[in-house]
Formats: sequence, structure tokens, C-alpha cells
Amino acid sequence: MKLVHDPIHGGIELDDFAVKLVDTPEFQRLRRITQLGLAFLVYPSARHTRFEHSLGTFYLARKITEYNPEIEEGAVYAALLHDIGHYPFSHTLEALYPRHEENTRRVLREGEIRDVIEERYSLGEFLGFLKHPLVSGDIDADRMDYLVRDAYYTGVAYGLVDLERLIRNLHWDGERLILKEKGIMAGQNLLISRSMMYPTVYQHHTVRIASSMLCKAVELEGVELEELRKMDEVDLVARLRASEKKEVRELISAIENRRLYKRVLWSGKKLDEETIKELRKELESEFGHLALLDYPEKPRFEERNAFVEFNGEIKRLSEVSPVVRALVEAKESNWRWGIYAREDKVEEVRTFVSKRLK
Amino acid sequence: MKLVHDPIHGGIELDDFAVKLVDTPEFQRLRRITQLGLAFLVYPSARHTRFEHSLGTFYLARKITEYNPEIEEGAVYAALLHDIGHYPFSHTLEALYPRHEENTRRVLREGEIRDVIEERYSLGEFLGFLKHPLVSGDIDADRMDYLVRDAYYTGVAYGLVDLERLIRNLHWDGERLILKEKGIMAGQNLLISRSMMYPTVYQHHTVRIASSMLCKAVELEGVELEELRKMDEVDLVARLRASEKKEVRELISAIENRRLYKRVLWSGKKLDEETIKELRKELESEFGHLALLDYPEKPRFEERNAFVEFNGEIKRLSEVSPVVRALVEAKESNWRWGIYAREDKVEEVRTFVSKRLK
Amino acid sequence: MKLVHDPIHGGIELDDFAVKLVDTPEFQRLRRITQLGLAFLVYPSARHTRFEHSLGTFYLARKITEYNPEIEEGAVYAALLHDIGHYPFSHTLEALYPRHEENTRRVLREGEIRDVIEERYSLGEFLGFLKHPLVSGDIDADRMDYLVRDAYYTGVAYGLVDLERLIRNLHWDGERLILKEKGIMAGQNLLISRSMMYPTVYQHHTVRIASSMLCKAVELEGVELEELRKMDEVDLVARLRASEKKEVRELISAIENRRLYKRVLWSGKKLDEETIKELRKELESEFGHLALLDYPEKPRFEERNAFVEFNGEIKRLSEVSPVVRALVEAKESNWRWGIYAREDKVEEVRTFVSKRLK
Amino acid sequence: MKLVHDPIHGGIELDDFAVKLVDTPEFQRLRRITQLGLAFLVYPSARHTRFEHSLGTFYLARKITEYNPEIEEGAVYAALLHDIGHYPFSHTLEALYPRHEENTRRVLREGEIRDVIEERYSLGEFLGFLKHPLVSGDIDADRMDYLVRDAYYTGVAYGLVDLERLIRNLHWDGERLILKEKGIMAGQNLLISRSMMYPTVYQHHTVRIASSMLCKAVELEGVELEELRKMDEVDLVARLRASEKKEVRELISAIENRRLYKRVLWSGKKLDEETIKELRKELESEFGHLALLDYPEKPRFEERNAFVEFNGEIKRLSEVSPVVRALVEAKESNWRWGIYAREDKVEEVRTFVSKRLK
Repeated sequence: MKLVHDPIHGGIELDDFAVKLVDTPEFQRLRRITQLGLAFLVYPSARHTRFEHSLGTFYLARKITEYNPEIEEGAVYAALLHDIGHYPFSHTLEALYPRHEENTRRVLREGEIRDVIEERYSLGEFLGFLKHPLVSGDIDADRMDYLVRDAYYTGVAYGLVDLERLIRNLHWDGERLILKEKGIMAGQNLLISRSMMYPTVYQHHTVRIASSMLCKAVELEGVELEELRKMDEVDLVARLRASEKKEVRELISAIENRRLYKRVLWSGKKLDEETIKELRKELESEFGHLALLDYPEKPRFEERNAFVEFNGEIKRLSEVSPVVRALVEAKESNWRWGIYAREDKVEEVRTFVSKRLK
Repeated sequence: MKLVHDPIHGGIELDDFAVKLVDTPEFQRLRRITQLGLAFLVYPSARHTRFEHSLGTFYLARKITEYNPEIEEGAVYAALLHDIGHYPFSHTLEALYPRHEENTRRVLREGEIRDVIEERYSLGEFLGFLKHPLVSGDIDADRMDYLVRDAYYTGVAYGLVDLERLIRNLHWDGERLILKEKGIMAGQNLLISRSMMYPTVYQHHTVRIASSMLCKAVELEGVELEELRKMDEVDLVARLRASEKKEVRELISAIENRRLYKRVLWSGKKLDEETIKELRKELESEFGHLALLDYPEKPRFEERNAFVEFNGEIKRLSEVSPVVRALVEAKESNWRWGIYAREDKVEEVRTFVSKRLK
Repeated sequence: MKLVHDPIHGGIELDDFAVKLVDTPEFQRLRRITQLGLAFLVYPSARHTRFEHSLGTFYLARKITEYNPEIEEGAVYAALLHDIGHYPFSHTLEALYPRHEENTRRVLREGEIRDVIEERYSLGEFLGFLKHPLVSGDIDADRMDYLVRDAYYTGVAYGLVDLERLIRNLHWDGERLILKEKGIMAGQNLLISRSMMYPTVYQHHTVRIASSMLCKAVELEGVELEELRKMDEVDLVARLRASEKKEVRELISAIENRRLYKRVLWSGKKLDEETIKELRKELESEFGHLALLDYPEKPRFEERNAFVEFNGEIKRLSEVSPVVRALVEAKESNWRWGIYAREDKVEEVRTFVSKRLK
Repeated sequence: MKLVHDPIHGGIELDDFAVKLVDTPEFQRLRRITQLGLAFLVYPSARHTRFEHSLGTFYLARKITEYNPEIEEGAVYAALLHDIGHYPFSHTLEALYPRHEENTRRVLREGEIRDVIEERYSLGEFLGFLKHPLVSGDIDADRMDYLVRDAYYTGVAYGLVDLERLIRNLHWDGERLILKEKGIMAGQNLLISRSMMYPTVYQHHTVRIASSMLCKAVELEGVELEELRKMDEVDLVARLRASEKKEVRELISAIENRRLYKRVLWSGKKLDEETIKELRKELESEFGHLALLDYPEKPRFEERNAFVEFNGEIKRLSEVSPVVRALVEAKESNWRWGIYAREDKVEEVRTFVSKRLK
């Protein structure tokens, strides 16, 4: 047994098997993957990594199983490893590459860590645990940890959640984690917190700008998925700094010196796919890496799959709580796409775009 | 200048005039009026008083005026004194007596404190400040302080609010406090927090039961408004303990020993006034002080009067935020009335009521 | 099982036996005994009571036994009841009456609570648990709770202690709680915290003045020990307010309106017992209740009895830590006695005393 | 004016001049210099950087000058820039290279930042401000920020300090920052906190081992001071990973995968310089990079230069506080030197050393 200190949860106890998993190069690499990507350009203190978050998720998953001993233990170790496939700067590069979940499965299949896992589980069995509601539900250990942790490190109050009340009131019915009536308010609070962290931190426009710049640099550099998926942030940044392409070096230097592009356009009005594609092409041929189109996916309405026990019946939290229902609408209304350009090009791009989009 | 330590705001500076106001018997009496009435029967640590809350409200009001120096200083002192008319156990006895605001005006008119006020203000002028948006708006110093303070003392996480962001973004337009765009999320958070504190703390059913018992005791004892309005909690409790009526002594003793009545009925279905009146009379004639009908007013939808600046226009926060709109609905849906009875009478009362209400 | 919310420890679980103990009038009375007596006159937010502290001590004692299951369970319930004999305003009146520990034993012997205890323990056996190191040692559940709780309610940072590290590192050797090497720093921190809370909160001169005034009022009123020991703060204050003696009414009114006496003299120089006695008599005959001599006992050096395991040997913490040794000296050097007088008498008393003591 | 969010201080306001300083490449580089070097190998959450700390120090320095407007404003900007010369991993490499203060002066002399500084100050004048007691005293803005920040990020409770009480009670006498009597306890607390953070965090033996390994890697790689002083952590780590020397690659990989050397010897007994030198040489010729001697300087007793006003006289805090005096002794007693070796070499090295040192 080993004890790791953590400012969020106090002492996190790691049993011997967890220690072995943590002591693999694959897991230690998470120390060099920041939890919030480039958000530190807005919240300088947000320097925490997937490593601490993974330990914290493991801790909460363990706690939940203490109240629900029927949950298979493998799901708790899956909580520990659920983020092992993240690319450098976490979600940032998922705009260019497949989502990290696929890479998580590959890392577990290929890495040294596989040998450790197979001391206890078959690989197939373990990969199954990654989809366990303990770690991939709407109210799960993953989300509980990251909301509180991101709030702590950014100093944004909205992520505060009553973890104890949640954990005490999660009941495993063999298939789902159901929130008991006494925990409904805390569950609602978690979903509200998440919805408020979105525009404030995760989708902050400055973070979006910097992320678009990084994506462009990586794209121009032509980093292969096979390379990227094993890189940590030192590898990627060193590669970009040393690029043979001037544009790449300019972009990474602009990010690192916080000379970020500015918004030319910022809109909640949808475009059809064709328009997006063309606009992107035209911007590129006209301005190269100096103008960027950032058109993110619409947020998914995951709030709908949290289940609660209410007056003896199992319901969706959104049926019970008008506030949670309202969050769906709120999310749509907070969605934005943007066009960004280097400061000296803003006017030129604006003229170009306004002609093009009128 | 005097410095008072406070766990919420750190050091609260009192200027000489504020010290004089605080040093009156009327203000010192607030030390013996608990902020949350009988909520300590559910949250034992909620023993804070109107005294600390008044200092905290003053502190925040002062802060807001630092960013808005055009606000008249009298409003800041009104923030200090806005709760001076509270009865023992704060809102609890407002079910029987006029709301405390009327008493606040009377205390200011009649007390020693009037002499202090009149060193600077005419009484009429000062009474006007009590209605200033700084202290009686929907996003005001009063609410900011009590939410955070009540969260701190109960340990309920929902009351946490980003005070700094709110304060920095409140703009006085000569008539109203308008929330600037950067503060909208914090304002929404304040209203959400309030709506979540309602069922969890302020309207917790056990608090409602104990409060109904106290109201009954005071009613039976026949405490006159003229007496009550100057009492503190020592006066009132000592009076009830020493009552000549056995029922009164029984009720106060049951509250103090936490032998509380139980719920016979707990419903969100409205009754018409006539039915309420009759039912109350019948319960009383049948069971005396052993069964209590508690039919609170519907919550007011105060969330509608918070103003924000959004894309250059002044709007209601509820127009801008679907979540705030949802709070209105949520409040209705959390409203309940109840019938409570002494544990040994519960079955008997249930039979009686179910016949009566079918 | 019942869950009580607490801002310090989160959810405190009470098993059925604990619930029965808590549900006695003797235990409920603790809700009306403030933890820090009159300290709220300096730290207005310090309104917490022996009730919460007793629950918190129980919680920590339970935690320690989870790591040390050999500790008899009776000691955990003793932790819950260890303060049941406190007088109104906690330690304040111990200057006039026997220390509260004797009363704790009497309450347990005489109250309704005895019947509950005897469901599990013989009374003699249970009284023995009150001296268990779990609750009456130098690093024990009692002290751990009150330091952190008092810090939380006063807002004074010095009481913060790493409870988790302490609890994990306390080892029961059958006779004593020994601090393991990894916990030494946390143990040292606890003793430092305590030593810093003394002058800042517990022995703050304004608290000492108000306490001396209350003692005088109670003494003049002639409250018998047999009465006092069952009183709560409502009883005592109501009695003093209604006193037939004008001096008593004046004193309690001065405390409640915070018109406190002022320091005439404040000194660290010892007096011999004879001088104290005479001086007190003379002050009384000359000034009655308007001048008070406050000569507290020297602090006890309890820091000496904390045991630690260091390089495989059991040692006193003071042997291992030069800082803890220094605390002994510091305590002596912070000790003061004082003479206080009503503001208008200060000069007169000063003249009298300076003649008398030269 | 720009507002930066910070979890320690809330909103940090940057005036236009501060923004210009922050927006230089030299300052932005601090985002890639971790505050506590390799401490994250023990406290995984300690990923904060010199960037946030510099902003925090600026914030506190500004606050202190609000109470002491006579302090020259240049000292506040010096607080912002005081750490600009840190090498990658902060103090870690100061065992091999000159202390960072010299580099700070060079960066200010040579960088883009010089142009910004010279808009307001002559360079010589500004370099002088770096020695101002506001930022290089024993109780200064630098120390106040790092203690609280390091406590926050490690989760170690000992660094908590009552910043508000300190700041309110620091008085500038034209030459020194003097702590007023009301702040003595808070000042003592700061020094105690610092002394407790030393063994717990800053000098934790595992951090010392990893730091020794990094020093060896850098030494073997032969990084020139001229290169190092401009590097950030990406530069240095990428360089070591890509080294032509197998030993260097082994060392950095061992650190990154947390396969750290183990203690062969850990002692508080001094050695003379000659012995150290020889022992180091012998270890190297026998074991190469597989055994490391780590002999740190004795801690300096900086606690002696904090000044306080006590009974109207200026004294050293150590004269007034026996606890602070004890800290000097405690520091000596916590000092250790060590020999570390790769796990498979521990026994061999132990045999070698025990012969050599007997």
C-alpha cells in the first residue's frame, strides 16, 4: 500500500496492483499531459495533469464501490487507466485525430502495462471495464474528479460539487449507477457545475484560439497519428520548435509567447458542411496559417442519461429536474464558432469573410 | 477604524460611524438572533447570527460602492442595519406576525440608534436607503452574504458564489445595479445557489416542523407583537419555558430536546383558503397543540428582477439565461405544505385528515 | 444509522447507540453551551457549541479506532460525552466552580443518559473511559476537533491541523497513542497551533475582561453549584437579567451591550497568594463590582506528554522537537494577569492600584 | 488594466506597465519553469510554475504598498520580475551553476524586457529594486506567496499563513518592513510554516534523490551555463532525451518513469570538505553515474532578520519569540546529506561506502 498526497482528496491509497499500474512508463507519461490543454493561457494556475486526475478518479471509484461492493473491482482499475490514451494537451488535438478512447485501448493492448493488467484480468475483460458506468456515465467518478479538480486549479468557483453526498447516494443496481432521492440535489449541482465550466473554462474563447493555432501547427508539421499517440508534451513542443517549416515555428512561438490571434468573427449561427469546407479552403489559400476557422461540434446532451430514484421509480434526472432540462437549451445557446487571425491581418480577413458570408 | 475578524470576508473594517451604530443595544441584540432560526436542529453547526451577517452585508455593500462611487454612502449603512428588526429566530415567527421590515423601520425610529443615525442623516432619508438596490435587489449585498455564510456554517456546498466576480461586474446606472456581461455566469450561479439552498436548508422539512411547533407555542402563550419585537432569543425561550400553560412548556421542551413532531401529510397540491381555515380549526378542536397545519406562502419569483447588460442592451437575467427561467418552475415544484403531529398521535391524525380531505 | 452534516468533517455517521445518547436531554443541552464562551465578543462568528464539538470528537475518535481496532469501543462513546458536564459559557465559570470534569461524571450518574449507557456498559466502566488517551491525551480526538473547529469559526488560521496525517499515524500500543515518525511534523503542528490559539483567541484580553465581568455577576447573584450545573445559557442569562441586585443587572447588561471594562493593569509579573487575596479584598471594598482582579492559573505544560516513535524508540515529542520545547517557554511568556475597571473608573482604580503595588 | 484569475488571491489586477512586462518572451518563459522542480514526483499535484508565483508576489507587494504608499513603485515591479532568471526546475540545478539571482540581472540587462523597463526606470535603478525588503526580506511578498501557494498545490497544510493579518501589520520605516505588534503571531506563523515545509516538501528525501539524478545528467551532458540560462524545461528535457551519452538518456528516463535511485546512506553528521571531494571522486570512478553523493549546504538562518515593533522598540523577531529561536536549532537538526544508488547497486555501494567511511 502506498499513500499519495492530493490537495483535493487528501491521502489517496494505492494498493499493490494499483502501484504496479502507476509504475509503468505509459502511466508516468500522463504527468506530462496537462489536464486542460492550453487553458493555462487564460488560467495560469491550471497546470494540473492527467496523472493527478487519474489518481483522483481511481480514489472516487474506490469510494463508490465501498458503498456498492457488488461492482467488479476491475472497473476501479479501469478508472485509474481510463485516460491513458490522451494525446499531448488532452482534448485539443482531437479536432485533427480520432478521439483518445481508441488510443487508450491501443496503449493497453501494446504497452508494458498490458503485462501488469494480465496478472489479474484478460485484456478483453479489462477493455470492457472502460465502458463501465462507474467511469463513463453521466454522473461518474471521472466527471466528479475533473469538475472539482479543475475548479481548484483554475480558481473558478462553479465546479464545486458535494462529492460526499453524491457518493453516499449512488446505488448500483447491477447495470447502472442510480442516484437516490437524497442525492438528487447534488447530482443536479454536478450537471449545473459542468454546464457552467464549459463557457467559463473549457470553451473560453481565448483557449479556443490558442487551440486552433496549435492544431494548425501540428497539421502543417504533418505529425502522424502513430507518432502523436506516444508523444508527451515535451516531445510535441520540441518537435514543433525544431520544425523545418517557418509557419510551424511561428505558430508555436506565438502560442508560447502568448501572442495569440484575435477574433474576426464569433457566431452562434450554424453553417452547413459545404460552406464550412469551402470557407476553410478559401481562407487557407488566401491567408495560409494566418487565418483559422474553428467550427466545433455541437455539444452532446449527456445530461439525459443520469438516472435517479424518485418516489420509488427510476427516472432520468432531466425528467425530475426542470433546471437540468434547461441546461440542454443553455448548452446550445452557448455554442459558438469562430474565425481568428493574426493581429495584423484581422481587418483584411474581416473584409474577406464579410464579403464571403453575406 | 476598527477591524472585526470574519471567516468569510477576512477583516471587516468598520469606520467610526459604523462603530457607533454597532455599539448600540439595538445592534448588539442581533448577536442573540440566529440567522437561520431552528435550522440548527438539522445542521447543528448553523449557529451564526444576524450580527455577523449584518457586518458581512455592510462589507460587501462597501466593496460594491468602491467600484461605483456614485452610490450614496447612506445605502452602505442601511446594509449594516437592514436586519435590525428581526424577531427571535429570524423568519420563523413571520408566519404569525408582520414581516420584520416594518419592525426594522420602527426600531430605527424609536431606538438609541436613531440618535446615531441623525448625526448624519435625517430619519426619513435613511429609511429610504433601506429600499436601495444595494441591499434589497435580486443580486445584492444581503443575498451575497447570506448565501455564502449559510453555506459555510451548514457545510452545504450549494451556496458557494464567486463574490469577487459579482462585485467587480456590478455597475450602478443611477437607479439599478446592472450585471455586466462578464458577471452573468456568476449572477446565474447566485440564483441557482439560492434555489438549491431552499429545499436543502431553508425549507428542510424538519426545520419546517420545528418552526411550526415554535409558532404554536408562541401563539398559545399569546406573546404580543409589542413585546416580541424587542425580545431576543433568551427572552423568548425563557418566557416559553416559564409559561403557565402546560402546552407551551411541552412544545418548547420538545423542540429543545429534539423530540419533534412527525409528518402526517406532505403535499404539493394547493388548497383553497376556505379549506385551509376550516381544516386548521378542526385539527385544533380535535387535537389541540398536538397536530399542526403548516401552509406556507408560495415562493415569490424574485429571480425576475436581476438586470444584466447583454450585447449592449439591458435585459432581465431570466431573458438571457434559460437556467434562470427554469428556476422559476423549479421553485413551484419544490413547494410543499404539511400536517405534523406528535409521534403518538400520527396515526390518529392521519385517519382524521384522510377522511376530511378525500 | 443517522448522518449529521458538519462543515468540518463532512458527514458524521451516528450508529444507533450514539443516536440514543445524543437524543437525551443532557446531550441536547449542549446545543445551548457555546464552545468558546464569550469569545464571540471578539470573534463574532464564534457561535459554535459543545454539541457540534462533541459530535466532531466522536467522529475523530471513531476514525482513530478504525486504524486501531484494539481500542475499546467504549472510549469512542466517551469521546461523544466527554464534555457533557460543561457549565454555561464553557470554561468561563471554572474560575468560580470546580472544573467541569467532576460535573460530567455527575451528569452521567444522575441523568436520563445513565439508562442509555447502562444498556451496554456498567457506569463505573464507562466513567473509566473518560480518562482514555483517545479523549484525554495531549494529541487526542478532543484537541484535534476543537483546534480545527475553533479556527474555522473564528477565521483564525493558526488552528489548522493536518487531521488526516495525524490520524493515519497514531498507533495504540495498548496503553498510549503513539505518533509514528511520519506523523511527527503533524503532531508538532498541532501543539504549535494550540499554543498560537491561546493568546489569539482563548486568552484574548477582551475575552478575559468579559469573562471576569460574567464571573463577578454570577458570584454576586450567588448561583449555587447545584443550580448552575444543570443550567444552559438561556437559564443563566435570564436569571442574571432578572436579578434583584442592580449590580448583577448592570454587569450582564454591560456584557450584552458590549460596554466592557477596560484594562487598568496587564502584567506578566507574578504575585504571591497573600497579595492577590488582599488586593482583591481591597478593590472590592473600595470599588465593589466596578473593578475586577483577574489572576489566572499559569498554563500547564501538557505538551510534554505526547509520545512519538523515533528511530524505533518511544520518546516524548518535546525530546524530539526543539520547537515543542520552545512552546513551553512561550506559554509562560504569554501568561498575564490583569485589573479591569468600568471605563469611568479606570483612572481612579489606576491611582489606587499603583499606590498599593509599588 | 487586465485581470488574471488565481486560486490563491482571486483576481490579480495588472496595470498597463505590468501587462507589458508580462507580455515579454522572458516572462512568458516562466510558464515553463515549475515552481518546485521535481517535487511533483512526491506531490503529483505540485505542477505550478514561476509564472503564477511571480504574479502572486506582485499582487502581495502591491497590497503592502497600499498600506505603505511611501514604498517606491519600482519595488512592486521588481517583485514581478524577481524570479525571471530561474533555470529549468528552479533551484534544482543551483547545485551545479551560480544561483539564479545573477541570471535574473543578466536577463533584465539583455532581454526584450529591458526595453519595457527602460520606459520607466534606468536599468541600474531597477536592478537596485531587486534587493528591496519588499521582495528580499525575511517576511516579504515572495515568501508569503510561495508558502501559501506551495501549500495549496501540494495539499500540505503547514504552509498556511494569515496573509491578511501580515499585510495589514507590515510597516515601512523607510528602510525596513517592520511587523507591528498585532502581526507578530502571524509573522511567527510564517516562519514556522516555512520551517515545516522544508523537510516535508522542499527537502523531502525523494525529491533530493531525483534532483541529484537530474544534476548528474546535466553535468554529464555538459550543458553550458550560457545555454542553460535561456532554456525552459522543454529545451532541457528534450536535450537530455536526445543525448548522445547513454548515461544521460538513462538518467532522464529513470526520472521520467520514476525509477529513482535509493538511499544508501542518510546522515546528519558533517564531513569536512576534503573527505567530500575524495569520496565523490572515488564513487564516480567506481560506479560512474550509478552512485551519487548529495551534500547540500547547511540551511541559512534567515529567520533572524525579521524585525518587529514590540512595546515601542524595534527588535528581531527571534528576540521576542522563543519559538522562532527554536526554529534555528530545528533547521540544523533537520539537515541531512546522502548517498544514493540505482536499486541494483545499493548493496555494492553500501559495502564500498561503509569501508571508506569507517
